[in-house]
Order: sequence, then structure tokens, then C-alpha cells
Amino acid sequence: MTFQTNHLYLQFSHETIFNINYIHKMRHTKVKDLLNSTKTLHEVNAKGWVRTFRNNQFIALNDGSTIDNIQCVVDFENTPDETLKRITTGAAISVTGTLVESKGAGQKFEIQVAKLEILGDSDAEKFPIQPKNKPSLDFLRENAHLRVRTNMFGAIMRVRSVLSYAVHSYFQEKGFVYVNTPIITGSDAEGAGEMFKVTALPFDGTPRTEDGKVNYKEDFFGKETNLTVSGQLEGETFAMALGQIYTFGPTFRAENSNTSRHLAEFWMIEPEVAFNDLNDNMDLAEDFIQYVIKYTMDKCPEDLKFLETRLLDEEKSKPVAERSEMALLDKLNFVLENNFKRVSYTEAIDILRECTPNKKKKFNYIINEWGADLQSEHERYLVEKHFKCPVILFDYPANIKAFYMRLNEDGKTVRAMDILFPGIGEIVGGSQREERFDVLVEKMKALGIDEEELWWYLDTRKFGSAVHSGFGLGFERLVLFVTGMTNIRDVIPFPRTPMNAEF
Amino acid sequence: MTFQTNHLYLQFSHETIFNINYIHKMRHTKVKDLLNSTKTLHEVNAKGWVRTFRNNQFIALNDGSTIDNIQCVVDFENTPDETLKRITTGAAISVTGTLVESKGAGQKFEIQVAKLEILGDSDAEKFPIQPKNKPSLDFLRENAHLRVRTNMFGAIMRVRSVLSYAVHSYFQEKGFVYVNTPIITGSDAEGAGEMFKVTALPFDGTPRTEDGKVNYKEDFFGKETNLTVSGQLEGETFAMALGQIYTFGPTFRAENSNTSRHLAEFWMIEPEVAFNDLNDNMDLAEDFIQYVIKYTMDKCPEDLKFLETRLLDEEKSKPVAERSEMALLDKLNFVLENNFKRVSYTEAIDILRECTPNKKKKFNYIINEWGADLQSEHERYLVEKHFKCPVILFDYPANIKAFYMRLNEDGKTVRAMDILFPGIGEIVGGSQREERFDVLVEKMKALGIDEEELWWYLDTRKFGSAVHSGFGLGFERLVLFVTGMTNIRDVIPFPRTPMNAEF
Repeated sequence: MTFQTNHLYLQFSHETIFNINYIHKMRHTKVKDLLNSTKTLHEVNAKGWVRTFRNNQFIALNDGSTIDNIQCVVDFENTPDETLKRITTGAAISVTGTLVESKGAGQKFEIQVAKLEILGDSDAEKFPIQPKNKPSLDFLRENAHLRVRTNMFGAIMRVRSVLSYAVHSYFQEKGFVYVNTPIITGSDAEGAGEMFKVTALPFDGTPRTEDGKVNYKEDFFGKETNLTVSGQLEGETFAMALGQIYTFGPTFRAENSNTSRHLAEFWMIEPEVAFNDLNDNMDLAEDFIQYVIKYTMDKCPEDLKFLETRLLDEEKSKPVAERSEMALLDKLNFVLENNFKRVSYTEAIDILRECTPNKKKKFNYIINEWGADLQSEHERYLVEKHFKCPVILFDYPANIKAFYMRLNEDGKTVRAMDILFPGIGEIVGGSQREERFDVLVEKMKALGIDEEELWWYLDTRKFGSAVHSGFGLGFERLVLFVTGMTNIRDVIPFPRTPMNAEF
Repeated sequence: MTFQTNHLYLQFSHETIFNINYIHKMRHTKVKDLLNSTKTLHEVNAKGWVRTFRNNQFIALNDGSTIDNIQCVVDFENTPDETLKRITTGAAISVTGTLVESKGAGQKFEIQVAKLEILGDSDAEKFPIQPKNKPSLDFLRENAHLRVRTNMFGAIMRVRSVLSYAVHSYFQEKGFVYVNTPIITGSDAEGAGEMFKVTALPFDGTPRTEDGKVNYKEDFFGKETNLTVSGQLEGETFAMALGQIYTFGPTFRAENSNTSRHLAEFWMIEPEVAFNDLNDNMDLAEDFIQYVIKYTMDKCPEDLKFLETRLLDEEKSKPVAERSEMALLDKLNFVLENNFKRVSYTEAIDILRECTPNKKKKFNYIINEWGADLQSEHERYLVEKHFKCPVILFDYPANIKAFYMRLNEDGKTVRAMDILFPGIGEIVGGSQREERFDVLVEKMKALGIDEEELWWYLDTRKFGSAVHSGFGLGFERLVLFVTGMTNIRDVIPFPRTPMNAEF
């Protein structure tokens, strides 16, 4: 007996169809699609991992396509004990049966299982991710390869993925060109932070020059190389040709910052736009952030709802004063519905100098004079206490900002901007760039930056220079904000931090 | 006189409107949008870089938004000589004037310039990218920061960007989760190639253990770390939780391969799908490649047309026998319209053993026996001479493939696949993964791969293992294929190759 085409199925009884499905290696359907089904009473196959198994009868099956599980009802009287015992948390199974409307609460559909196959066992004694144990975030970090099998990390990683795509969609729809600036860089002049060395030279028998120095001419690239801290300078050269560009790639800091906001390896988004001044740059950043948050709220309602509830639960153990003033979705909506407050550095200093924590010396760093670098405590005061909304600070003192920022006519401030977010602090740093060759060279000289090393960067100011601006947004800080998580190690698949490069 | 709202413009003469536009800092319009305009005779502002300036009258202005320039017609009799002299190739300018239908051939619209401003000069004696000189590709590589101002590299970089977005679109539309696997890795067991060391330790005064070895415990991560050669192993752990995932990020090889097909730093796409077998994997790869090529052809017709013409021009200097059999767009259409030929390694060996170049000993490596590793010359023969279409080779001998590939029931081949493209060679390498814990461990032991180091990878086979498959696609090779370029250094913004990490 052979079956050539699908429409022949109609001629056969339920049981025959069922067997045919097996002959044809019935394709499994994703749990997300099953739960969004528009018809029932047809045969389906689902594959995934067991989350829980209750009463020897109800399997909660998840395949990662959605945070929701599909309930699979096992006919335990006709299922061998041997099989029932192997339906453990973490086991991979394949179930085939009829999709029916569920009588139980909590789900619309369930599968009445006709056939169940254990694809891969999961020893209940050994599988580390047992929902009943409520594993700590620390424990889950040590098991980053398995934590993504929890509801929380499944939701975080799906939201992260959709946020990434929102980033690309925003820029591509506007005609920006995605530019992959180099990860290994021969240039270390940007000064954004400590760099990791990249080398193929050995520590034992390192080649040396006659005067005993490391002979980098014998290294892979024939020179000293590091991991990039920013693609901005290379990005600028492309913006001065393609008009509007963006980068989105990994960047690195070899800084011993063991905080909940720092990673040694993180992903950064850096748009750069020819002919944009600082105001255009602020408009772009604000519009961009609002777009990607809106996009993600539209695409991930279930995951965000779950993360909102998780955050509420977590905060129950905190004193009321330390809890968030808004629930997660309210906070995200607030950002969409309110303009970011634009405040000059000078105004900010005036506010800080006069504020109660400064006068009562509650700050670790007391603000006395114009020119002080703002610390995290000051930024948080401005955002969380004073303005209670995202804030764009601009026109910072030149001497606390990078060499490439456009000097204002006052000769002492630069066209820099930082965007500060509640609970996160700095999420964006950007500027209008110094487009004037002479001013740029003078600044580099004053800071001891080698002109010859940045010959190519200076070329952009020699040949067809123009006003241009851009910013960098730390992607993980954005994911932190959108997911309501509090430690940056929990929003990247395999975090890299001091003393930690497992996996 | 103040003007509050735009609709007041209607009350004033042409000249007045013009002045108002200046007062309001008229926003510039992208060249692409000007060329796609549906109305004329209105005032516009354009900003960009001068490509050419003919007869003291016709500026070809480009802003990177499209390969096409907009012609700007200067009223040279009423423009100071001083200004006309500064309209040089590479100069950044702002032109304001009336958009009119062009009387000249080659463009639909042009700007009758009323006001021209030089934003940034470009010294004609010094600007290296002079179209008249026909700079060589080698020269342009040394000026990677400026080459993107040429038609060729503008087109390549726009196509690369659109191809990138097509990659994300394909997977996101299908519900894949984008996963950023780590760039710095503490694991060096994958064996895909030589790795770059990442370290914060100094070469002078390197910390040592008591027995004189480098003490990596004092390094930033407390262990030896390298730049990743593949995100696959980490990706598999996520596929075994989220079902369908993909990576798209930079990968590295510290190999001294100075060829037109190798880079030390390149971008790789690695999807991984739970419950997919090798056939599903082939289907996915083929569908994916066809989708991204189709997407790019739809979005970049002008750029691809230009690149097609460029290739034809380039090939005119070649002997007829060495020229491409198909023009670029025909070749891309051919890939869309024809299934990839699926051929087992064993069949391929039979073909190669019997083919003329093998019998006449024209190959550098003569194919005598089953088990031989295929060289580039053999792959090219199969694809370019024998089948004349993209080929998927599968079921390779186990001992020439990686440890994680699924052993077939024959005990000597593995469920590997390579996709070979004409002119490019291998563009995809993939496999069904060995899901059986015992078989995998045995293979690792035989190859001397440390089980303890890959404890987390083995966990995926301990807890809910299942059939799964994936592949890696070298993004730059895809860009090579789609753009018709022949050197991989020309399809990445700043290539990294042995002895070269400039910029």
C-alpha cells in the first residue's frame, strides 16, 4: 500500500491517517503555532522539552518558540510505567495526538496524546534546572548553557533577539547602511577604555628587537593589535561617503569593573550621520529608542508580561522605598509617550549644586564647581529624583570629553550628549564631531594623540569635511531596561567579566 | 518679520519663500529621494560630495544614498570664480535650488542651483580617489577609508548591508532567535582553525607559576582565552532550549592564508535547529540562500546592475575561456531558479576518479581512493565543469570531518554537508550533530578532546538530547558571490589579513 499525495488521506479512517502520518514522517508543529491554532480535532506532532509532569498525566511541553507551554494529556493507563518514569523535567520528547480544546484552566488547547516517544532522557537527580528548587540567578549564571531552558531566560533571550531586529529594521527602513567596522584594530587612539591585546606571539620565546622590545613586526598583523572599544572612527569614514551608517557589533573593555552594569564584551550600536548636528543627533537617538521599544512591545507581549510579573515578585522582598515606582510595561509606555528632557550640563550642575543630597553631603562626590565630571549618583539623582524621565544632558566641558567632539563657540564646552535612563544610568553617549581639521589637530596635539596613527581619520577632515554626528548605545543596557532585569550578566547569553570566560 | 508656520509660505513670492527656507534651516533631501521625486519646480536642498564637475556648470553630486548622482546645474556666470574653483572631486557641498526635469540625457531630474555652499574643500592635487586615474583595487585597499566614495565600493557596501538585513529578516520571520555567542572564548576545542590569543598580560614581566609556565590565573579572565572560530557549540546549547536559533557575528582564524578567499576576521552566520536532520538542514540552507539573494535583487537593482557592468568590463581584459559564462544577474537568477544538486561524497569521488583532469593528471592532487579530502580544484571541477550549478556534497568520511558530526549507520561516514558555489567554492559547511552521548564521548576520546573542558557541551547530550542540525555560512563569500567581486578583501569594510590591520 503506497500513498502518493496528501489529499488521499481523506479516504481513510482516523487510525489509518494516523499511521500514514508516521509513514510520511509527520512534520512537527511549533508550540506557538499550536497555541494559535484556528482549528482543532486534527492530528498534530509536537517536539520539545518537558517542563513539568503532573499526576502521571499532564505534561507541560515547551519548545522555546513561546513562553507558553502546551499541555499534553497522557493516557497513563495505556502507557507503560517504564515510559511514564522517563517523562522528567528536561527530557526531550515527541508527542503525537489530537489537538483539542482544553477543559482545564490556563490554556485554550491541549494535545490528547496518542503516541509518545522519549527522544532524550533527563535524569531527574542530575538535571540542575529544577523549577521546584527556584535556582538563584548566580547559580543560573554558572549554568548559562542551561538557564535558557527556564521561562525567565527564554523570555529574556527572545526579547533580546527581537530588540536586535528592531535595531536593524529602524536603520534599514531609513536607508542607513550597516557597516561592520573591524573588531581587531591596529589603532588604539580612541581612548574609550583599556584594551585587550590580540596576538599570535608566544609568551615563551617572544620575538624581540635588538633593543629588547617585543618585535610586533613578527606578529600576525606585523603590528600591535587590540580588540576594538568602538567602531566610531571607522564608522565616520563611511558616513562621509554613504551619508547614514550604523554599526552593531561586539566591543570590548579590559577594565576590572565588577559591577552589575559592566561587561568586558558587549554589543554596541553606533549610528553616524553626515550633515547631522547635535540637535538632529538627539532627535535620532530619541526616535530610535522609542521605535525599538515600541517594536518589541508589539512583538513580545507575552514575554514582557512574564518579565513584568517576575520583577514584581522580585521586588516584594525589597523595602517599599526601593521598589520601582512603575511596573515594567508602564515604564516602557512612559518612555514612548514622553519626550526626553533635554538639559545642558551647566543647567544640570546648577540643579545638582542646589539639591538636598548635595547640600546635606549625601553624595560621595560633592558638586561644587562647574567642570566636575558627573558620577553615577548624580546622573541617577537627575533622572530618578529630579526629572523622573529619560534625560539628555548636552554641552559638556571639553576637558572631560573625548578629543573628537565639536568645540562650541564658547571655547570651553563641546557638543556632547549623554542619555540617562532611570535604573540604568548612561545608555547613550554621543556628539557632534569636530569637523574642522585645524581645531581637531590642535586638540589631538594637546592630548598627545599621534596624528600619524590616525592619518586616515584626519583624511575625512581634509577631503570634503562636513558637520556630522553620531552616538553609541550599549545594547545590553537597553535589554536591561526593556526586560526589567537588574544585572547585565543576565541579558547576554554568555557574559564575559573579570575572572569569568566559561563556555 | 517672523514666520510661525509653514502654510504662511503661500503668501509670498518665490524669492521670499527661498529666504524663509534659509531662516528655517531647510532640511536637505537625500539624492535617492530627489531622483524618485513625483513633483518638480519646488525648492530643494541637497548635501553631498562632488563626484565630477564639467564645463564649470554640471556637478554630479552623490550622498551615498544611491549609486546615482544628481546633476546640479550651476549658474556659472553669477557664481564667483573663487567658488567655482573649489567645486572639486571629493568636496562636500550644499546646493539649494529648484528641482526640474532634466533636458540632458541620463537623468530625469536635476537641480537648478540658486545657492551653493562649500562645506568642506577637497584639494584636487591631494585627494587620492580621482575617477580619471582609474585607481587599482590594490591602491583602493590601502585607502579603505576613502574607497567607499567610489561607485564600486558604495555599491558593494550597500549590497552587503542589504544582504545582512536579508539574513536577519529570513530568520526572524521564521521565528529563529538571534543569539550573540561569545567572541572571547575560554574553549579552544572546536578545532576549526588556529586561534588568536586574547590577553591583558604583559610580554615583559609575564606572571609565571612556580614551574615557570605562564600564569593565566593572573590574566583578566583567570584563564587562557582566544578569539572564537565559531559560535556553533554555544549555539547548540541555545537551540536545545529555544528550538531555532542563529548567530551572525565576527569569527577569526590566525592562519597565514594569503588568498583571495580568506580573511583573518570575517562574519559568519550559523543557524542551529533542534529536531532537524541533515535533509532538513539542506532544505534550510538552500531556502535561506535563495531568499537572501532574491531579497537583495529586489532591493538593490541599480547597485547590482552597476556591478554587473563592472564585471563585464573587468573580464574584457581576460581570455574568453576565463570569462564568466553568465552575467552577474543571470547567475543570481540561475541560483534562484534551480535546485542545488545534492551529491554524496561517494558519488563525487566516483565522478572525480573518472574525470578527464584526474586521468590526465591535471589536478595537483590526484583522486585515487575513497577517503581523500577534496581540494578546491576538485570542488571547482564538480561545480563549474561537471554539474554547472550549486552543489551540496554530503555524507563525508568521518575521519576528515569534525568530532561533533553525526556518525552514519555505516560507521565510516558522517552526516556532514558542504555547499559549493561556482567561482567561490565552499560557502556553507554544516552537519547533523551527534546527539548520542556515548558516541560523542568516544569520538572525543579518540581525538584527544578534553571532556572536562566541554562539560557544558556534553550536558546538552545528557539532558534532553535530540536530533539537531546546523550550518555555518561565511558571509563575505556570499557577498563575493552576489557582487561578482573576486577578492574577499573588497567586500568587507576594513579587511584583516596577514600583515595587515590598518585603520
